[in-house]
Amino acid sequence: MDGEAQPIALLDGKEDRYGGVEVNLMEVEPMTAEDFNAKLDVSLKAWKDQGKKGIWIKLPCELLSLVDIAIKKGFTYHHAENEYVMLTSWISDLPSTIPANASHRIGIGALVLNKNREVLVVQEIDGVFKGTGLWKLPTGVIQEGEGIWAGAVREVKEETGIETRFVEVLACGESHQSFLERKTDIYFLCELEPSTFEIKKQDSEILDAKWMPIEEYVKQPFIQNRENFRYMANICLKRSQEEYLGFSTVLTKNLTGKESYLYCNTDHADFLNGKLDHASTSLFRKCFCLT
Amino acid sequence: MDGEAQPIALLDGKEDRYGGVEVNLMEVEPMTAEDFNAKLDVSLKAWKDQGKKGIWIKLPCELLSLVDIAIKKGFTYHHAENEYVMLTSWISDLPSTIPANASHRIGIGALVLNKNREVLVVQEIDGVFKGTGLWKLPTGVIQEGEGIWAGAVREVKEETGIETRFVEVLACGESHQSFLERKTDIYFLCELEPSTFEIKKQDSEILDAKWMPIEEYVKQPFIQNRENFRYMANICLKRSQEEYLGFSTVLTKNLTGKESYLYCNTDHADFLNGKLDHASTSLFRKCFCLT
Repeated sequence: MDGEAQPIALLDGKEDRYGGVEVNLMEVEPMTAEDFNAKLDVSLKAWKDQGKKGIWIKLPCELLSLVDIAIKKGFTYHHAENEYVMLTSWISDLPSTIPANASHRIGIGALVLNKNREVLVVQEIDGVFKGTGLWKLPTGVIQEGEGIWAGAVREVKEETGIETRFVEVLACGESHQSFLERKTDIYFLCELEPSTFEIKKQDSEILDAKWMPIEEYVKQPFIQNRENFRYMANICLKRSQEEYLGFSTVLTKNLTGKESYLYCNTDHADFLNGKLDHASTSLFRKCFCLT
Repeated sequence: MDGEAQPIALLDGKEDRYGGVEVNLMEVEPMTAEDFNAKLDVSLKAWKDQGKKGIWIKLPCELLSLVDIAIKKGFTYHHAENEYVMLTSWISDLPSTIPANASHRIGIGALVLNKNREVLVVQEIDGVFKGTGLWKLPTGVIQEGEGIWAGAVREVKEETGIETRFVEVLACGESHQSFLERKTDIYFLCELEPSTFEIKKQDSEILDAKWMPIEEYVKQPFIQNRENFRYMANICLKRSQEEYLGFSTVLTKNLTGKESYLYCNTDHADFLNGKLDHASTSLFRKCFCLT
């Protein structure tokens, strides 16, 4: 009978722009399961009373024992990275607007042509093309936080030692359920211009690399027998004949003020970049009544 | 002294194409922590002896108690979805080639023009533009397994009730660290052609929606004062004047035989789709020595 019980403190949460609360337990004092259990109960009640909607809890791997408690109160995994898990719960009666987890991986294929219209090609040690004999364009995956053009330049350098600069995105495509059960690859076919020509292949992933006449590359049976490969190779061939126009980059800033690149019709990019007075392509289409 | 102890069975794993092993515990008999601990020890030893590289373990939420055991043996979270977690461990001396987790979310912005050169615009109830008075293009996020063009058509229908067909990707851009700490949004600006014109706005997310003259849309101070918005709006304006050419779709199949779309220069897409004998744009550029 020491008088009234101390009120239980709420979990320390930050309000977000969408009427939600973000609780970050990455750098707080260790918390017992009982303590977390009691705090989460009073917090959820308070947040409901305040009309809050989406609740987020970020937990380090050391606090895994708390995950179970939250899941029993209606939380689910939203996503996880090496060192943490993110749980969410939608506590409003309105339809949930919890944003989706990352759903895509971005891949690149790099068309690198030298002055003799030879294309830089590789054979990989492992993977889906192993044993097919296919000479393929260098390909790779864009890393977290990396730009498309920068990732393309990095992959070519890593796999073949060739230094390049980005020229254009020539095409892009989708491949659903290709690398993880529910995720989609979007690949960007990029043209890069080489500034070095001596190949130093990467030993861990690349079996062989060489310069190959573009016509020979396109004619490979593996490519000719698969419509999507044939289409992509046709775009590469037309590009090598200067008969194809893609998207090039305009440097700008995104909403948060960070530098970012816009990819758009090359004529228009030249116009936005101040290199052309107007976009030639579109004028041509207009003159010839193609639009 | 009952004779020899029974050998401990390995975890049931499937070999992958990259010298790895995938263990799926989603639908197995419940396993005690001691059982899992012992099996994982002998399995890891056997896999190492066999020269295996990447080990994957998929666990349902009901087996969360096993996560800790695996983490103490060198596993880390690879990713998680609502009902499972995926752990990985690289047990080879070679450099790790464990594929990255999904790193991107794909957004779309939809340019929908009617015959009077009015553009379909909305104001959102919540989010970053709340209170700015900005009339913006309908935007949204592509769902897991959904194609870019299909997601654009769906979002416009959901937000405004307008039925459309996909015409072209006009541009794309990147926004790093915008929705989740480490992830990147790639947004595709798409033109869609409306087949209905009466707006029925979505009540949960959309404050208001209307048709607005394109010049009025472009002139909004919020757009004019932000370079990336101004660039995008300029592309929309040029498009409305038939002075811009983007990427349109070619239906094909991906490596696993599923239908998928390739996005490439519209002239070339017409050529691949059998609608044009050759790509006019590129010929024009060649004639006028612009390449």
